[in-house]
Amino acid sequence: MLAHIITIGDELLIGQVVDTNSAFICQELNNHNIVVDEVVSVHDDRQQIVSALDNAMQCADLVLLTGGLGPTKDDITKLTLARYFGGELVENDEVRQHIFELYSSRPQVFNSLTATQWLVPQNAIILPNRVGSAPLMVWMRHVGKREVIVASMPGVPYEMEIAMREQVMPFVEAHRTLTNAIVHRHVMVYGIPESTLALQIAQWEAALPETMHLAYLPKDGIVRLRLSSYGEASAAQLDERVSVLLPLLGDAVVATEDKPLEVLVGEQLLRLHATVGSAESCTGGKIAALLSKHAGSSDFYKGSVVAYSNEVKMSVLGVEKTTLEEWGAVSEQTVIQMAQGARRVLGTDYAVATSGIAGPGGGTADKPVGTIWTAVATPEKVYTKLLHLGTLRDKNTDRTTVAVLVNLLRILQNK
Amino acid sequence: MLAHIITIGDELLIGQVVDTNSAFICQELNNHNIVVDEVVSVHDDRQQIVSALDNAMQCADLVLLTGGLGPTKDDITKLTLARYFGGELVENDEVRQHIFELYSSRPQVFNSLTATQWLVPQNAIILPNRVGSAPLMVWMRHVGKREVIVASMPGVPYEMEIAMREQVMPFVEAHRTLTNAIVHRHVMVYGIPESTLALQIAQWEAALPETMHLAYLPKDGIVRLRLSSYGEASAAQLDERVSVLLPLLGDAVVATEDKPLEVLVGEQLLRLHATVGSAESCTGGKIAALLSKHAGSSDFYKGSVVAYSNEVKMSVLGVEKTTLEEWGAVSEQTVIQMAQGARRVLGTDYAVATSGIAGPGGGTADKPVGTIWTAVATPEKVYTKLLHLGTLRDKNTDRTTVAVLVNLLRILQNK
Repeated sequence: MLAHIITIGDELLIGQVVDTNSAFICQELNNHNIVVDEVVSVHDDRQQIVSALDNAMQCADLVLLTGGLGPTKDDITKLTLARYFGGELVENDEVRQHIFELYSSRPQVFNSLTATQWLVPQNAIILPNRVGSAPLMVWMRHVGKREVIVASMPGVPYEMEIAMREQVMPFVEAHRTLTNAIVHRHVMVYGIPESTLALQIAQWEAALPETMHLAYLPKDGIVRLRLSSYGEASAAQLDERVSVLLPLLGDAVVATEDKPLEVLVGEQLLRLHATVGSAESCTGGKIAALLSKHAGSSDFYKGSVVAYSNEVKMSVLGVEKTTLEEWGAVSEQTVIQMAQGARRVLGTDYAVATSGIAGPGGGTADKPVGTIWTAVATPEKVYTKLLHLGTLRDKNTDRTTVAVLVNLLRILQNK
Repeated sequence: MLAHIITIGDELLIGQVVDTNSAFICQELNNHNIVVDEVVSVHDDRQQIVSALDNAMQCADLVLLTGGLGPTKDDITKLTLARYFGGELVENDEVRQHIFELYSSRPQVFNSLTATQWLVPQNAIILPNRVGSAPLMVWMRHVGKREVIVASMPGVPYEMEIAMREQVMPFVEAHRTLTNAIVHRHVMVYGIPESTLALQIAQWEAALPETMHLAYLPKDGIVRLRLSSYGEASAAQLDERVSVLLPLLGDAVVATEDKPLEVLVGEQLLRLHATVGSAESCTGGKIAALLSKHAGSSDFYKGSVVAYSNEVKMSVLGVEKTTLEEWGAVSEQTVIQMAQGARRVLGTDYAVATSGIAGPGGGTADKPVGTIWTAVATPEKVYTKLLHLGTLRDKNTDRTTVAVLVNLLRILQNK
């Protein structure tokens, strides 16, 4: 089954909004073994929408659209689709009823524009939108011998995600013809640059059969290797290849699954019934935000001190004035005291700490931009690591966050 | 001048990576008054790349490609483009020289795969890639009467961003024919739902001339209104319309420029020579990460306490045990003490605080999921606000972050 995705909205094409919807939809389809052939973003423009649809209907079995369903004038997707499939907009009682219920506790948002939301294409199947007022619309059409499913969803990410999971995918599953499954295996590798890694595993890669495909996905110091089969190779065959790969990579392997780093860290902490906190200077709360990102994180994450200024490093974390004066804020000595201070002040078993020059300014000859000290304090000792990164601020803080979480993960994995 | 963007990579179409490159490129082009007509994402697949190129060359004056330039086997963009324009790959001495210099301090990454990086299409103009080893390639071709510029850039976001800013845009500017300029004006509105807002300004909107276009861009409680002209309407005419719009919106206007909220907050703090910190429970460091995001933020941002557990609320921020017992962690009393504690402990002029039930679990009849207390402590008093949000964890913490920064901004604006 082949899918095309069409995301609609002027805001996407002037770069005001990053299109996260496509990635979410691709992921969902991938989980259902549906291959996405193409993603295209077009303006809120009738002709562009029609031409993208024409193109998609020619080759795809499933066409998913997002965006352009709001009540305001610039949103034209609903009418465009109604006419594309040869119809007009008509009032729909069920949708009206739903919108009344949705807004019953918020009468202030109820107005004549909301009312345009229960006008729906007469030729569409309407699926319920649990969290919003825009209708979910589905069409099924024969193109030659193929039956094509076209579904239109809101562009607001959380509405789209719920629509996709609760309505569109069940509908598609109920109507699709089963095809060959895609299977993936992942290996997360840290600390080896992509091209070095590729050479290190070149022989292994060259010996892969035609039915398997290897991709390198580098990000912030981690390279995720993804080995995929498109139906012809079995999961067991993939596992066999991975078992040959792992010894070639040794200690560089962080995980053999595709989970976010903070989830892997959380799993280890839960296994050990241990808690963690952070003391952050240059990362400015990024580690805290990751550790608290997922539901249930309060079982292992207690808190953090973002000690951006030297005063906070001293007053809250207990870093000694003489340490800062003698060695500077960006030093092994400081980052050790920060990590120890975090453990003590936050009352956790483990704590990580960061202090560095994130850039773009602030570097010296001794400590150029990208010089970043990290530490992991455990109940037994403090481990430190010095990073030499680049000059890009965001990149540096992201890479530091990954580096320190990888260090923590390895220490926890060995417990 | 019309542009098409083609992003290449299997990882985009299985949803493993969010395509942030398109948004960045759209923004840059928009700043240079180039209209992006379409963004398309395709697999690392020769035929798909060729077909996307064929389509783009038919209507665009500028075609920008990203991705598929790595040294590993799955990356085929370079060879595909060389052949598309009727040539092969040849060794390039300048590129080799550059790569030697780039890796001179890191000999460990130097290997035979790196060496494939100085093979470049014989028919391309090669622009220097300051930060990476992948070549930046440009072609100029006549299609009918149009001269089309095609540029290929790396997919790694920071390499692409530097390539775009330092090389590709200057090249395009040097070769383009000047056309009508696009001008935008922005108004950021907080606290009015999109459809209510649309009604509130319906008359104003209906009176806009054909040469102007209004878009509603809602996110996390803020609606950004973008009024655009495509050449025919002047900047002065846009300003005139905006000056009529503002009185209709009253206090809901947060800003009349399109800057991130944390930048607006930072500007106000600098104006007042004041400092800020945060005490975060449910937002878990998100506010800290925003306040420290930009270079120079240490001039106004001192630090934060992420008090995820009640123990940290008491021990670090000084929230009283009786307050937590009597009112609970999610209460006005607690969030007031958190904000006051943050001001005292961090030694800042202002502090914001959050405590709430982010979900999806943890709600009670009294305090359902989405119940979130926020506070802003100033030198004079503490302002509090109760939010009733939904059940989606990430959405709730994002909306809370926006709500508390808007409150802080308004207080600062009135100083």
